[in-house]
Amino acid sequence: MSSSELAFIDRLRLLATDPAARGLEDDVAVIGELVLTHDMIAEGVHFLPTDPPASVGWKLVAVNLSDLAGKGAEPVAALMGVTLGGDSEWDEKFLSGVAAACETYGLALVGGDTIALPPGAPRVLSLTAVGRGGATIPSRSGGSAGDALWVVGTLGDASLGLEVLQSDGAAEGPLVEAYRRPVPQLAAGGLIAPHATAMMDLSDGLLLDANRLCSASKCGASIDLNALPISRAYIAERGTGRRARLAAATGGDDYALLAALPNDFNPLSLSLPERTILARIGTLTDGEGLKLIDAAGEVPLPEQLGYEHRA
Amino acid sequence: MSSSELAFIDRLRLLATDPAARGLEDDVAVIGELVLTHDMIAEGVHFLPTDPPASVGWKLVAVNLSDLAGKGAEPVAALMGVTLGGDSEWDEKFLSGVAAACETYGLALVGGDTIALPPGAPRVLSLTAVGRGGATIPSRSGGSAGDALWVVGTLGDASLGLEVLQSDGAAEGPLVEAYRRPVPQLAAGGLIAPHATAMMDLSDGLLLDANRLCSASKCGASIDLNALPISRAYIAERGTGRRARLAAATGGDDYALLAALPNDFNPLSLSLPERTILARIGTLTDGEGLKLIDAAGEVPLPEQLGYEHRA
Repeated sequence: MSSSELAFIDRLRLLATDPAARGLEDDVAVIGELVLTHDMIAEGVHFLPTDPPASVGWKLVAVNLSDLAGKGAEPVAALMGVTLGGDSEWDEKFLSGVAAACETYGLALVGGDTIALPPGAPRVLSLTAVGRGGATIPSRSGGSAGDALWVVGTLGDASLGLEVLQSDGAAEGPLVEAYRRPVPQLAAGGLIAPHATAMMDLSDGLLLDANRLCSASKCGASIDLNALPISRAYIAERGTGRRARLAAATGGDDYALLAALPNDFNPLSLSLPERTILARIGTLTDGEGLKLIDAAGEVPLPEQLGYEHRA
Repeated sequence: MSSSELAFIDRLRLLATDPAARGLEDDVAVIGELVLTHDMIAEGVHFLPTDPPASVGWKLVAVNLSDLAGKGAEPVAALMGVTLGGDSEWDEKFLSGVAAACETYGLALVGGDTIALPPGAPRVLSLTAVGRGGATIPSRSGGSAGDALWVVGTLGDASLGLEVLQSDGAAEGPLVEAYRRPVPQLAAGGLIAPHATAMMDLSDGLLLDANRLCSASKCGASIDLNALPISRAYIAERGTGRRARLAAATGGDDYALLAALPNDFNPLSLSLPERTILARIGTLTDGEGLKLIDAAGEVPLPEQLGYEHRA
């Protein structure tokens, strides 16, 4: 994130003093039992002009639902903002992707806005998702030293899928799918939330987001690179070396969940959906900042902890 | 609105089957007692690149609050989506305008998203406003023949202000202010809502929006051009002739309210804020479509009923 973006968000934070805003340290706002999130995606930034439009529609819904999943909230309704650039075939296919995601996750599209943009302007798409939280809506700030850190889902697939696409626009396969059609971990999020001391979805890279959770929780974390959940498709492409694991730990667009749980609580005891991938990746610690380890000992933190161009 | 935009919205309507969506015929969605609206504004479409950035921030908030006013809802919270183009001075001033509007109307900024756009791309700004509705949240569809049609606020100032700015970028005055800093009619909306059979805010021009209210209410309307509330600033620039009144009836960006009220109910009996401008402009009728009259008799409908480039 550039310094001007950071300054902008600091200024925003001064405005967002209502408790519902959770200090803008969370991905969501909480109004009564409702959990609200608002994400924008832009052409050339969050999706490629060559991505199938249906996948862009899917992704717009999924990235917002992932924020709800990170709070254990159940999807209720969405309002969507769409810029129309005059390509009605693209728009129609985009909408079919929105529809597919809404139907899959029981999200009612209840309103929004469409505006025309000048020809050639990049598409900007926004969605506000409204969810219903459970009795506990975990924030980022409740973790404390000794809690175990768990990840739901795999890491690095989407960022590697983007890399693959950038060198071959016609590429297909599970990595490309992970980039284009992320799967929000709603069921797991709902089951884990009541037990989590802190929880969030991973959109900008594990290390960057874990660092945010630690800052909010005023603690540090020790993360074992060897414990990261990595898919077979990722390993087939990159192997399991330190470099591959660091790339998986810093790639964005995972839409996995990061949860801090009491050390003696085993989330494998929950009735999670079949094929849920779950890994204990480390522990929250006293102090601040991240410490990385692998079998060979301590690993220097990479310069970039994640994808820094969004807030 | 182009045919492809209309097709897009028809397709959206098939998706938005939840009762909360109100068939997308309303500006808002209703979830429990909460009223939600989501509007986007884009540079070069809804504001000028030369508009003071603080006024753009104000307008983003005000146009969404106007949707709440149209439903008699009280502002609660907002989530904002902002594209950052690298001009931090612009962004900072924009935010000061957002802050001013939020403070003025008691709206808590509780979340949102900021994204970076490629240099040169037009800014796109989105806001979701959440309001609390009263016991009655009027839709567009409850009007019936015999109801009186009332307008709160004046018509045509903003569209004339835009015209003035287009011929003189340095122009100032009440018309330019009306374009740049619309005032949502929240207090009047809240007081009138319990009595209204149908209500909405006027964003795309009186005739176009009245036609929408009539379509939704399955009736027609007779509107007296001579009864339209027109400001002194408007009259000073354009006079009071038929042409001036037709321009006021079709210009967009008014953010006035249009309410259908029982014929024997007089909204002047309400404790409206001082200086509220209120005019009875006509009557809902049997049949469909609009009929315009003035002192000289029936007036042919203009070809363009309003600003058709938004949904």
